[in-house]
Amino acid sequence: MIDNFTYNTPTKLIFGKGVIKDLPKVLAGFGKNVLLTYGGGSIKKMGLYDKVKSLLKGFNIVELSGIEPNPKYDPSVITGAKLCKENNIDVILAVGGGSVLDCSKAISVCAKFSGEGWDLISGKVKAKESIPIVDIITLAATGSEYDMGCVISNTAINDKRGYLDELMFPAVSFLDPEYTYSVSKWQTACGTADAMNHVLEQFFATPNSQFNDGVMISALKSLMANVKVALDKPDDYSARSELMYICTLACNGIMSNGAGYSGWPMHSIEHALSAYFDITHGAGLAIITPRWMKEILSEKTVERFTTLGTLLFGFDKTLSDMEMAGKVINAFYDFFESIGIPMHLGALGVKEDKIEEMADHILANDSTNEPYMFAPLDKPALIRILKASM
Amino acid sequence: MIDNFTYNTPTKLIFGKGVIKDLPKVLAGFGKNVLLTYGGGSIKKMGLYDKVKSLLKGFNIVELSGIEPNPKYDPSVITGAKLCKENNIDVILAVGGGSVLDCSKAISVCAKFSGEGWDLISGKVKAKESIPIVDIITLAATGSEYDMGCVISNTAINDKRGYLDELMFPAVSFLDPEYTYSVSKWQTACGTADAMNHVLEQFFATPNSQFNDGVMISALKSLMANVKVALDKPDDYSARSELMYICTLACNGIMSNGAGYSGWPMHSIEHALSAYFDITHGAGLAIITPRWMKEILSEKTVERFTTLGTLLFGFDKTLSDMEMAGKVINAFYDFFESIGIPMHLGALGVKEDKIEEMADHILANDSTNEPYMFAPLDKPALIRILKASM
Repeated sequence: MIDNFTYNTPTKLIFGKGVIKDLPKVLAGFGKNVLLTYGGGSIKKMGLYDKVKSLLKGFNIVELSGIEPNPKYDPSVITGAKLCKENNIDVILAVGGGSVLDCSKAISVCAKFSGEGWDLISGKVKAKESIPIVDIITLAATGSEYDMGCVISNTAINDKRGYLDELMFPAVSFLDPEYTYSVSKWQTACGTADAMNHVLEQFFATPNSQFNDGVMISALKSLMANVKVALDKPDDYSARSELMYICTLACNGIMSNGAGYSGWPMHSIEHALSAYFDITHGAGLAIITPRWMKEILSEKTVERFTTLGTLLFGFDKTLSDMEMAGKVINAFYDFFESIGIPMHLGALGVKEDKIEEMADHILANDSTNEPYMFAPLDKPALIRILKASM
Repeated sequence: MIDNFTYNTPTKLIFGKGVIKDLPKVLAGFGKNVLLTYGGGSIKKMGLYDKVKSLLKGFNIVELSGIEPNPKYDPSVITGAKLCKENNIDVILAVGGGSVLDCSKAISVCAKFSGEGWDLISGKVKAKESIPIVDIITLAATGSEYDMGCVISNTAINDKRGYLDELMFPAVSFLDPEYTYSVSKWQTACGTADAMNHVLEQFFATPNSQFNDGVMISALKSLMANVKVALDKPDDYSARSELMYICTLACNGIMSNGAGYSGWPMHSIEHALSAYFDITHGAGLAIITPRWMKEILSEKTVERFTTLGTLLFGFDKTLSDMEMAGKVINAFYDFFESIGIPMHLGALGVKEDKIEEMADHILANDSTNEPYMFAPLDKPALIRILKASM
């Protein structure tokens, strides 16, 4: 069953080997003044920075570098918005992974806003305008290149916010899987875990559609198979292209149109973890996933588990529903461990004594306990999930 | 493996029960002067015409009715373009199935062109402008509501053309599955066969992607299951919503991004059949499908068949590849017959003595024998397919 939905993605995808040759033509459609945003320098190591600069002779380029993983409102968003205002920027060119792009999205609206940018990001004020964004993605993970969201951390108040606005859809996303060859095993695994979690957040919702279920299970199957290939052989084009394409679609909504709103509870929990301990997003999600599944497993939710069991893992249909659900949870745990993610938050530096504070933070800032959630989580439930994840 | 592609669909989908309440707000964004296009009157029978008219009080409405199945350049497109020019039309509102919408798309570009419209449709001249299109779809079939193509017949020269231009993406498509409750069993079956064929045209291509394969097989599975439900119980919302949503996506490209160009050979053949004998598009495609499959089956193509055999039909993996391919072909034949499509072109009025002329027509107008096709078809091959389909 497909329930009511509205869907609209105005982003143009340009995917494949060598596609950034079209960058000058695409950027010229927006203007001459470009804010080039990037992170810690990996784009310099792989030669992409030089390539972009040589393609953009004739443009006026202002640079914002050093954008952090889990990008920060202060200094990155604030600085970027200031640069846009001072230099009359026509278009933002984000080169990097999801953090660089998320930061650039926040900049794109804050640059056109006269007030305090955090008022936009925290949802107090609705943005009216934005600067167009073009991106070149170097990491298969967040899907930010094909969605209207960004996640920004405000370290001053230990807050990490998911912020959505149609104004933040990139205009054009360049996706060349070859730029992901140099991604480390750790980031390859964490990026895949991130996309898998995006699919699972949408899968655990109602109503269920036979078609959407098949799409999401195909995404999970291909991600799980191809990440193993990419870890073993980082320059396998076939594997990298499947990972990159699925990650791009996984956060966009196209896989779950009409499936209702799941509430994205695992992301709510992970955002608190990252806000408090600045851990890698995909790793946090992977660790939480089987513990969240165990917490919400019930007669009411078990069908989602058995569908995964039969269609994704091919488990024996004669198992009892609860037996099969248990096997599904273990299979995800084992899979994440097999791609190199330590399955305990302690290994990422999370401290047990902050669990209660984080649970309060989640309830204060997110909707995990609202009745419209697929499986509402109250404070004891959040504490159980976090403790089990330690 | 995902090969190079560019993808961009600017159409907004508004899907579900009661969504046309938003029609006035959406149309007002384009202007006051509306060309309302529709077909033979089924929208009057189901009350949709009155509903639309009552929603659009305050708009200036000009009507073009009587648009034919397999819509004709003369008179429908010519008349519609003239009405747009005379009435300074701001937006075209197409209410009906794929034929009404295809005709409206052709009108939208011809209305902004000073020369002979067929020069645009036949690809001699590139369009520069179009009138925005909003549609309300009443038939789950062609997917025209989410693509940039239209198929127009020019009966004066026995030509039926597929015409593509980004200018023809609808701006907004309203999709309420309830409006398909009154679709006849015949049209329900033919619409589903049309969408199944759209998926199969994309499936038989290279390179193959594990993800895309899963998406397309999920589409076929859901179409095949849900058309049976809808034939049995025409007002089953769940079945109608799955059919409508999948039909919308099936012709858009989202299911096969990076899969290369298949060439759509079955559509080339069917377009000739419809041009000569004005048969129902989906029925023609259903009849051709197993015969085309049999013709192109070879060691080189057999993997596509075995993938369908195992993942779609769940056939025994120990069968030889060629045995399984044969079972797949028979399964499609049996399926189409089971939903009420007579599996012989003679039953639709096609005359055997036109086969050679149609084969010549296909080769003259389409690319079926080009080396880039998944499986090129020369004149003897086309004749074999058509004869076997009689």
